[in-house]
Amino acid sequence: MTTTNTHSNHGNHSNAGDKQNVTVIGLGRMGTALAAAFLDAGHPTTVFNRSPGKAEPLVARGARRAATVAEAVAASELVVVCVLDYPAVRALLDPVAAALRGKTLVNLTSGSPEQARAEAEWAAGHGIGYLDGGVMTTPPGIGDSANMILYAGAPELLATHRPALAVLGDPVDLGPDAGLASLYDAGLLGLMWSVFGGWLHATALTGADGVRAEDFTAIAVRWLRTVAWFLTSYAGQIDAGEYPGDDATLDIQAVAIGHLLHAAEARGVDNRLPELHLAMMKDAVAAGHGADSYARIIEAFRK
Amino acid sequence: MTTTNTHSNHGNHSNAGDKQNVTVIGLGRMGTALAAAFLDAGHPTTVFNRSPGKAEPLVARGARRAATVAEAVAASELVVVCVLDYPAVRALLDPVAAALRGKTLVNLTSGSPEQARAEAEWAAGHGIGYLDGGVMTTPPGIGDSANMILYAGAPELLATHRPALAVLGDPVDLGPDAGLASLYDAGLLGLMWSVFGGWLHATALTGADGVRAEDFTAIAVRWLRTVAWFLTSYAGQIDAGEYPGDDATLDIQAVAIGHLLHAAEARGVDNRLPELHLAMMKDAVAAGHGADSYARIIEAFRK
Ligand SMILES: NC(=O)c1ccc[n+]([C@@H]2O[C@H](COP(=O)([O-])OP(=O)(O)OC[C@H]3O[C@@H](n4cnc5c(N)ncnc54)[C@H](OP(=O)(O)O)[C@@H]3O)[C@@H](O)[C@H]2O)c1
Ligand SMILES: NC(=O)c1ccc[n+]([C@@H]2O[C@H](COP(=O)([O-])OP(=O)(O)OC[C@H]3O[C@@H](n4cnc5c(N)ncnc54)[C@H](OP(=O)(O)O)[C@@H]3O)[C@@H](O)[C@H]2O)c1
Repeated sequence: MTTTNTHSNHGNHSNAGDKQNVTVIGLGRMGTALAAAFLDAGHPTTVFNRSPGKAEPLVARGARRAATVAEAVAASELVVVCVLDYPAVRALLDPVAAALRGKTLVNLTSGSPEQARAEAEWAAGHGIGYLDGGVMTTPPGIGDSANMILYAGAPELLATHRPALAVLGDPVDLGPDAGLASLYDAGLLGLMWSVFGGWLHATALTGADGVRAEDFTAIAVRWLRTVAWFLTSYAGQIDAGEYPGDDATLDIQAVAIGHLLHAAEARGVDNRLPELHLAMMKDAVAAGHGADSYARIIEAFRK
Repeated sequence: MTTTNTHSNHGNHSNAGDKQNVTVIGLGRMGTALAAAFLDAGHPTTVFNRSPGKAEPLVARGARRAATVAEAVAASELVVVCVLDYPAVRALLDPVAAALRGKTLVNLTSGSPEQARAEAEWAAGHGIGYLDGGVMTTPPGIGDSANMILYAGAPELLATHRPALAVLGDPVDLGPDAGLASLYDAGLLGLMWSVFGGWLHATALTGADGVRAEDFTAIAVRWLRTVAWFLTSYAGQIDAGEYPGDDATLDIQAVAIGHLLHAAEARGVDNRLPELHLAMMKDAVAAGHGADSYARIIEAFRK
């Protein structure tokens, strides 16, 4: 019934070296990528999935298949779970809570900050170490240290398991509030959709005059670095609650966006997105903030 | 009446070395930064501004003040103009068009692609070499090669004058259509406002749970590099007209944005921006494109 290749490998470390045993529960697209990265890095890796067939390719690469969640949990001090949602996590793990006591559970399933905090409380109630994570890439990006994996809830557990977790992507410590990985994740995805929207609008605009998307995008990607530099300076303004306009006031930008709207309108490009930006700028100008920087618009988002 | 310091410096090159003479017309915030960068790089620099007082600080740094536009134009083969708008450019330069014949005029004034193309025609009609530019930074960023200055209209003139223009920022060649610097400029500013919007929404969201803007922004800036990588792959899809969903389909993203809307709603954050993204995703899903990537939404922007 046990599916490990050798019994001597049980425990914290394998006889293959100093690589920690790890368990991955959930072998969907993401869980499979996570387990594969552990295997590639030489970690003795035990895997479990509700539908057992999904373990096959990993077993072929050297993973040990656990027949039950209990067996999967018993195999390693570090247990990574990545399934559809938090209710699925709870359904899988509540029956084995006692077996998880004293171990570290890393939950890379997506959900809300409230669900993450509730899961941390459940874990604490059972004496289980708990890290809540947010994977900031798609499965092909797993294993690339250029990509971030956000961790929240227990900085000391992240410090302990950093060598193993670093094989998945660059571990980013968000501190002790277990809700923050989910919250950052949601915010960062929102930023992504806004980048997509602004880029698609601009690609449609320039495309109307015959510019290839690849040519415009090469410039857009460079420009994002300049924009990132603006964000860094605006972040300081938001924390300080003061928004000096300096070289780029809302007054000037509310005029400049008119050129964009006009050029896009003339080319039949849908302007709902820049019109929303203009509406927010106009509200700030009407409220007497025309000499301030764009960062002042944080107040409109806070309602 | 002539205000150059030495008469021997007239012509293409100064006796201070191999640095080309340059003229800057228009000494507002941007023109002043441009002239200062030329001076810092050792270019003999002649300046003119409608209101003569603005030349004083530059003269103190070694610039030669021209008393008239004609004198300014006579001083250099390379003439840079940066004033309020295109009508101001035409009003200044039409009277000296004959004197500009055979020289290179670089217009860094902002305007529409149509205005830029008309200016290029005006220049061609007078035998004036013409480059239309888009300055992708604010005045303090001038002189930093990390920042781009876009040039359109005459690749051969850009090649000739690249050493001088490179002191302002990294020169990017957009090819022979003089309208493209303005068009790219508008599109890139639109992308910037969308980044600002998405980032402000996320900063308000995370700020509601006590996260400092500087802390969130450090992660957001790293995330933008991952997002830039998505753009590059989507650009190829747009040029090919095919949008395979692979790891991130519209179906999945239309669900994921629900988590963002819910978390933001619960924190009193204004959701107009992500609601617009959701509306565009839903339209694409309803049209049967749920298995496609986000790049499919280019069709919504093209109306
Ligand atoms: N894919 C991405 O790009 C990406 C990126 C970041 C985060 N994530 C997050 O990672 C998590 C997994 O995503 P995925 O892409 O791997 O999804 P997926 O390919 O659809 O796999 C879903 C996994 O969840 C399991 N599962 C679902 N309901 C279950 C239940 N009630 N009990 C036990 N197991 C259950 C499935 O098991 P069966 O095989 O038995 O159905 C499967 O292993 C999600 O929370 C997702 O939001 C994904
Ligand atoms: N500032 C930026 O961050 C930035 C960034 C990218 C692009 N730009 C573009 O650069 C250009 C200049 O911007 P700026 O920031 O330097 O503006 P600014 O500080 O307001 O200066 C405007 C300049 O235009 C001149 N001018 C205005 N109307 C004129 C007329 N009818 N005839 C002659 N001269 C006239 C002004 O001369 P007087 O001194 O006599 O009034 C002054 O030199 C604009 O097209 C702007 O969009 C600016």
